[in-house]
Amino acid sequence: MSSKALDYENLNENVKKCQYAVRGELYLRASELQKEGKKIIFTNVGNPHALGQKPLTFPRQVIALCQAPFLLDDPNVGLIFPADAIARAKQFLGMTSGGLGAYSDSRGIPGVRKEVADFIERRDGYPSDPELIFLTDGASKGVMQILNSIIRGPSDGILVPVPQYPLYSASIQLLGGSLVPYYLEETANWGLDINDLRQSVAQARYKGITVRAMVIINPGNPTGQCLSVANLKQIIQFCHQENLVLLGDEVYQQNIYQDERPFISARKVLLDMGLPLSKEVQLVSFHTVSKGYWGECGQRGGYFEMTNIPPKAVEEIYKVASISLSPNVPGQIFMGLMVNPPKPGDISYDQFVRESKGILESLRRRAHMMTDGFNSCRNVVCAMYSFPQIRLPPRAIETANKLGKAADVFYCLRLLEATGISTVPGSGFGQKEGVFHLRTTILPAEEDMPAIMESFKKFNDEFMEKYEDHKGYSRM
Amino acid sequence: MSSKALDYENLNENVKKCQYAVRGELYLRASELQKEGKKIIFTNVGNPHALGQKPLTFPRQVIALCQAPFLLDDPNVGLIFPADAIARAKQFLGMTSGGLGAYSDSRGIPGVRKEVADFIERRDGYPSDPELIFLTDGASKGVMQILNSIIRGPSDGILVPVPQYPLYSASIQLLGGSLVPYYLEETANWGLDINDLRQSVAQARYKGITVRAMVIINPGNPTGQCLSVANLKQIIQFCHQENLVLLGDEVYQQNIYQDERPFISARKVLLDMGLPLSKEVQLVSFHTVSKGYWGECGQRGGYFEMTNIPPKAVEEIYKVASISLSPNVPGQIFMGLMVNPPKPGDISYDQFVRESKGILESLRRRAHMMTDGFNSCRNVVCAMYSFPQIRLPPRAIETANKLGKAADVFYCLRLLEATGISTVPGSGFGQKEGVFHLRTTILPAEEDMPAIMESFKKFNDEFMEKYEDHKGYSRM
Repeated sequence: MSSKALDYENLNENVKKCQYAVRGELYLRASELQKEGKKIIFTNVGNPHALGQKPLTFPRQVIALCQAPFLLDDPNVGLIFPADAIARAKQFLGMTSGGLGAYSDSRGIPGVRKEVADFIERRDGYPSDPELIFLTDGASKGVMQILNSIIRGPSDGILVPVPQYPLYSASIQLLGGSLVPYYLEETANWGLDINDLRQSVAQARYKGITVRAMVIINPGNPTGQCLSVANLKQIIQFCHQENLVLLGDEVYQQNIYQDERPFISARKVLLDMGLPLSKEVQLVSFHTVSKGYWGECGQRGGYFEMTNIPPKAVEEIYKVASISLSPNVPGQIFMGLMVNPPKPGDISYDQFVRESKGILESLRRRAHMMTDGFNSCRNVVCAMYSFPQIRLPPRAIETANKLGKAADVFYCLRLLEATGISTVPGSGFGQKEGVFHLRTTILPAEEDMPAIMESFKKFNDEFMEKYEDHKGYSRM
Repeated sequence: MSSKALDYENLNENVKKCQYAVRGELYLRASELQKEGKKIIFTNVGNPHALGQKPLTFPRQVIALCQAPFLLDDPNVGLIFPADAIARAKQFLGMTSGGLGAYSDSRGIPGVRKEVADFIERRDGYPSDPELIFLTDGASKGVMQILNSIIRGPSDGILVPVPQYPLYSASIQLLGGSLVPYYLEETANWGLDINDLRQSVAQARYKGITVRAMVIINPGNPTGQCLSVANLKQIIQFCHQENLVLLGDEVYQQNIYQDERPFISARKVLLDMGLPLSKEVQLVSFHTVSKGYWGECGQRGGYFEMTNIPPKAVEEIYKVASISLSPNVPGQIFMGLMVNPPKPGDISYDQFVRESKGILESLRRRAHMMTDGFNSCRNVVCAMYSFPQIRLPPRAIETANKLGKAADVFYCLRLLEATGISTVPGSGFGQKEGVFHLRTTILPAEEDMPAIMESFKKFNDEFMEKYEDHKGYSRM
């Protein structure tokens, strides 16, 4: 029997090549253990509702009414829905032709794109054009669509931070391009050194790669840092000199846990810089409803906004979006609600603020709990909450090597088996040679956090006790 | 100023090459006219809710409750939701961990995949494995994912029917593969001639193309026909001989308007054929919540089911699905509801049947109205409702040529300007050289249909009067 098109050996090589660590070996093993009845604490992927975060009430009321428009005529509707949710649902339904069951324009509902543009203007102080905003099924889909427009073949390179969110490495592999890594500096609060960046580009060119775009993840994932204005300016200048499209992954803009370093959008910094840069640097910025105090991952809502992309290219991106007809409409409504939440004076305002503040403050407390918890562990150094460095003893590294595993994969697997805590090894995000991390999220319920950190500490102590020979660690 | 990565001339060539007629020149012109205040009847894309089809009540009640789970504790909930919708919402929420706001497994919620498997078993009489069913954001996304796994480069060919739904041509272009056309026979009720198929493959091989898969659209889009069992058997045998993956686009399985030719799934025919074929022919079947009496396009729910795809390849497809984390969860719930609707005895059963029958019967009447209406028009021949052939007079073809337009594009543009009816020229779907069609949907409201057909007839009469020299038509 000859082999067939959908046999493994005949698959598209780019499909086989791509790796996606967030749902890789650790996740699969965790799922197995869960099936066997073990209690697993999934911190491998930011999925807050799965870990008990409650959805905000107001947006869910509005979407429920949009899904069941016949309720709007029900005399009893006022008994279970507040008047502002009813008004908002009517407003959204008025923006669609045919409600949530109809395909929208492939770029998304015009009225919602206008709400996004208004949000961006309020945030950045510069007007934004709804025609340059495309709604997407979550931010990932937007990123993949833009990368697909840019990448023409293996000699097209995309600068991606290391450590990085593996969406980028996986998408670039899938699209047949080349990832050009640049390293974030752990000792400098995961900041970015422009000289390193220059070197990365020079090295890539030497290999025959044309670097065409640069990804920044701000606030960082998995590192948590916000880039400073000075750093963003350098980046934008660099993109201008090197003729790179800047891709600004800003999905974590609500998740800021350090007051001294607020989030500032790449777009604001670019426009602040004035001519010629403000008219010349191509920028695509991404956002989502999946993060922050919304955490509405399952709804798949996102957008991207294009700055300085010429109309003919925008048209092509529109054409490709139209092949899938339209992003899911409920997800679009969530985006509209996120960028235009209840205002002071609205019936639902107080509850909305109470709920969102409650979540955000709890996330902050958890971030600090986790950072402190990690830092109190033997051989663990944690600059920011979600990406602690684990200084693995040489004997642990040797043992891992013998098992044919990366040392951090080995550590994370042991952690999973011993405690049920499902993390992602740093190697899935990228790290410097010989330096090991793990990535967690801060999303387990706050009341569970002390027990989780204690269970981590106990495991880590035993692990270090077993493998440490009290002579040397892995290098910092 | 040097040109930049997201300037038109530097875009990925595959992005520029791909064409998507359903939202092409005609659609853009129609949108312009609509902006100018003209009343447009969009029949270019199957978007029933946009044309007034009401959503089924029961699924919308269930999804509203799933979106607003706090309602389940509200003492007044029973005043506006029936008990079976409440029970069903609780059941779905129990299948998720974290409700609609949490990412599901990247293949979809296991409980819903089980419901799909049960539906397939009831339909085909053979058990189906939920592990081989992946839920998707509409059928299009599933098709693109499978094509992406198959296509390795320009010498990989995919057999696609002509006329075809342009998703296939656009996706194959975007993925950098080669479309290998095979023609459906208009004079044989749009059936498929295996000898033509053989010839298409031979011609492709001669050009150095390896044909790797064959797409069938059954029931046909835009042609509306159901393939006969005999025809399906020939196709399966052909795929076996030629070592092709069969891709069965079966999204229209609810839309059957000819009693004499029911829908039978490719999977049932394959399994009926027994060994060795039933274990050897690779088949992927696609379905959606966007068509039939559901018409829930904007929700983006779909699935694909894999038959005879080896586990290692399924794993790779799973990995790629996981890059986008999960299909939208509300769309998954719609799929669960579609394959497992209310049963006799349920409170909502009668209403559900009344509503769905009402829609389906109206669609049937409209299909017949349209077929008869077209056939009553000068130089229009319509075998099946949605793809009438227009015999364009030579002078009309010449005029179109002078304007640099395909003759059917010219005709459809004139139709649009004169009547507001927005159709798609047959050239977007593919047709034999010198034969012209247009594609409509049957989705305008039934009460509007007589006026629409009359307006079409009037336009067509005037058009023919103007261009016909009473000597010759374009050939059949």
